[in-house]
Amino acid sequence: MSTAATAPSAAGTDGTGVVARLRSALGDAVSVDAAALEAAREDKSGHVSPSAPLVVVTPRSTEDVQAVLRIASETRTPVVVRGAGTGLAGGAIASEGEIVLSMLGMDRLLEVSRDDELAVVQPGIINADLNAQLAPHGLWFAPDPASRAISTVGGNIATNAGGLLCAKYGVTREAVLGLKVVLADGRLLELGHRTVKGVTGLDFTALMIGSEGTLGVVVEATVRAKRITPGPVATISASFATVEDAARASAVITASGLAPAIMELIGESAMRHIADYLGVGHPGGSQLIVQFDGPGALAESQAALASIHSLGGAATLSADREEGERLFQVRRSFHPSIARLGTVLIEDVCVPRSALPAMFAAIGEIERSYGIEIPTVAHAGDGNLHPNFVFEGDDVPEHIWAAADELFLAALRLGGTLTGEHGIGLLKRRWLKDELGDDQLELQRQVKSVFDPLGILNPGKVFER
Amino acid sequence: MSTAATAPSAAGTDGTGVVARLRSALGDAVSVDAAALEAAREDKSGHVSPSAPLVVVTPRSTEDVQAVLRIASETRTPVVVRGAGTGLAGGAIASEGEIVLSMLGMDRLLEVSRDDELAVVQPGIINADLNAQLAPHGLWFAPDPASRAISTVGGNIATNAGGLLCAKYGVTREAVLGLKVVLADGRLLELGHRTVKGVTGLDFTALMIGSEGTLGVVVEATVRAKRITPGPVATISASFATVEDAARASAVITASGLAPAIMELIGESAMRHIADYLGVGHPGGSQLIVQFDGPGALAESQAALASIHSLGGAATLSADREEGERLFQVRRSFHPSIARLGTVLIEDVCVPRSALPAMFAAIGEIERSYGIEIPTVAHAGDGNLHPNFVFEGDDVPEHIWAAADELFLAALRLGGTLTGEHGIGLLKRRWLKDELGDDQLELQRQVKSVFDPLGILNPGKVFER
Repeated sequence: MSTAATAPSAAGTDGTGVVARLRSALGDAVSVDAAALEAAREDKSGHVSPSAPLVVVTPRSTEDVQAVLRIASETRTPVVVRGAGTGLAGGAIASEGEIVLSMLGMDRLLEVSRDDELAVVQPGIINADLNAQLAPHGLWFAPDPASRAISTVGGNIATNAGGLLCAKYGVTREAVLGLKVVLADGRLLELGHRTVKGVTGLDFTALMIGSEGTLGVVVEATVRAKRITPGPVATISASFATVEDAARASAVITASGLAPAIMELIGESAMRHIADYLGVGHPGGSQLIVQFDGPGALAESQAALASIHSLGGAATLSADREEGERLFQVRRSFHPSIARLGTVLIEDVCVPRSALPAMFAAIGEIERSYGIEIPTVAHAGDGNLHPNFVFEGDDVPEHIWAAADELFLAALRLGGTLTGEHGIGLLKRRWLKDELGDDQLELQRQVKSVFDPLGILNPGKVFER
Repeated sequence: MSTAATAPSAAGTDGTGVVARLRSALGDAVSVDAAALEAAREDKSGHVSPSAPLVVVTPRSTEDVQAVLRIASETRTPVVVRGAGTGLAGGAIASEGEIVLSMLGMDRLLEVSRDDELAVVQPGIINADLNAQLAPHGLWFAPDPASRAISTVGGNIATNAGGLLCAKYGVTREAVLGLKVVLADGRLLELGHRTVKGVTGLDFTALMIGSEGTLGVVVEATVRAKRITPGPVATISASFATVEDAARASAVITASGLAPAIMELIGESAMRHIADYLGVGHPGGSQLIVQFDGPGALAESQAALASIHSLGGAATLSADREEGERLFQVRRSFHPSIARLGTVLIEDVCVPRSALPAMFAAIGEIERSYGIEIPTVAHAGDGNLHPNFVFEGDDVPEHIWAAADELFLAALRLGGTLTGEHGIGLLKRRWLKDELGDDQLELQRQVKSVFDPLGILNPGKVFER
């Protein structure tokens, strides 16, 4: 039952009234502190909103979230849901007249069931914290974004995050069984179930995952927790003369039926920046880091090593877990090594993995034709590339967008997608139609309207106004 | 662009005109043969529709499907999409005034990519045929309904089918990357992609899976094809005095971290009927059949065997693939053994697997309180039970529905769901609200209306009229 029909007042014109109502309902969960408002103008995309939002509310409970949404609906005030602000597409940045709903106050692990291999969590829990709390139960949560130390599970759900392990262990959609969601008008929905199977009605759980705050506010999630299998781990770090060679090796490894848990590819300029950042020497070329786990780890890694050697790669193999973690430090140093160069636009195209060498070739052509460098890393097991554009200032320059445009269209031509795991947010809205087509885009807007008839949930994100 | 606004005429009142228009557009793909019309009145649920449909159309192409949907929209004629008619919830049965769209004429495997581990198929392809055609490529399609020899991939998609292997290898939603779908007005949509990851807009691919013909007509699917890993297989067949003992053993096996590829539980009365059907002796009790695959198969099966023995089970272990298949013949004989006893209503509740012993206890109580037998099998690895009700005649008697009602409510109380993999169809509509709640049900109806504003796609299925 919507309460939206009573006493509407345009957002922005009555900001003080909205804040007063929020304060009256939620007390000190409501902040207009300048630093808090400023912080909500940006995420990790490099984009900054033109103005500060109206207010930041940090709810402590589902009832708090419902109260905020009721007030927002009654006053037609837009709401931007925000976790840790690590998004890379501007999906959670807020501007003038908007209520920011910070979910960081709802960060608890509510239940663990080892027998049913599931956990019930609040959305503000940090990925790494969840795994630290699951570990004593012998369980882990598979979605593993590179930002796991700082990003929330709610953020994974908003963007259907994948991460390093998803080729073998699945993306967030495959790790979520059920959701509690507060609708734009404050009603609470329970979606999904605690079982692995279920086909009662339309799959609204899956619809919510990846919807970037446009359909409702996730306040609780029932997620799959996998058993930790102690077994061996084997890690290969391999150098190749060119990124095309490394991409070819990754394609051969998967084509030969091996199933790495992680396979990360680092392009030539990306490796150079990492070496500079770490202060180590770098002979040039590209790096491929591959990790196998499970009972077949050692045999699989030997087979992968043979493929790497046959393709001219120079490789080391370690069966030590800590040494393996150290080898991945090179990859994990990529973002800090680039961040210090300027403002960074991190792209996120995904192609069928057989098209990975072709996509790297396309990136090389764009670099040459625009006279720019596009340092790139890739989750090679699933064809997901993160090309990075570096520039000065808060706004992406036109020639960078032009280069990104060519990159997106190249990915679509290769049978790929605009975004593997970062989402559309603000930064990719203009290409949405290229991938979805007019008819599907119109249907998606209509479905958004079913959930949010007043258009107050993250307006202007994903779908252009 | 909808053509629905032109020259509407009420369905049923103009049946001859509709058939004539279909014939003019599709020629001999259109049949009003009495046997074809009669066949579309039933599926494998035991339910028969009250009357025969208007016409059966067997399209050969996407364009054919579009032509049918345009005519259906223009004449407001309801359309029931049908595969092999193996449904268990009445989702594909048709009655007076309805066009049946039989997808069996679109049954080709269109593409196989070993490197990208995917296949592109038409929806009418039989599951077993798809696997036979993928095998020479070293690939297989994981969803494995017990009906695989006779059911279609389109049917899997319509119901998000699971089957025997899904605890380890996932349900249909996890096996489908993209879909081509014809909308109610004849427009063609391309949903999803060829990549494992992707978060461009709302996940309409997932929304379509399990929607039971209410949102659109699937004309093509891009599905994941896994590599066949030859390795060993180990199969255990274990007898227990009671079904509760067998359920406890299955719970212990999964709780100890083992991951069977298949774990099938056969209740006491189910075992008795199977033994009668196969003409073999049966000492009484319940059966648990467990199969492990992959490199750890033998070690895992030894660990499971130890658990089984410690819980009083008598078991045999075979590492021979063909012998393993023979052990599963017992399970695969269940449906024929029951079908010969009368009309069968096959239920499909799913509970968190730790609740499996409690659900079997609840079934036992319902049997005693109604004085009926409910032969039951379960996919124990994922908590999905198929309790069977046997009766005389075409209509489910009231006392059977009353017993089924108690069964559904017991499953919901245990944190479970009405239907793990068969769908809502006609037969479970009255319980839909119990699981979804009023608010979610209303939103689901609205989303259905976005896709099908005239309400011509499988009207009365899933959602009551």
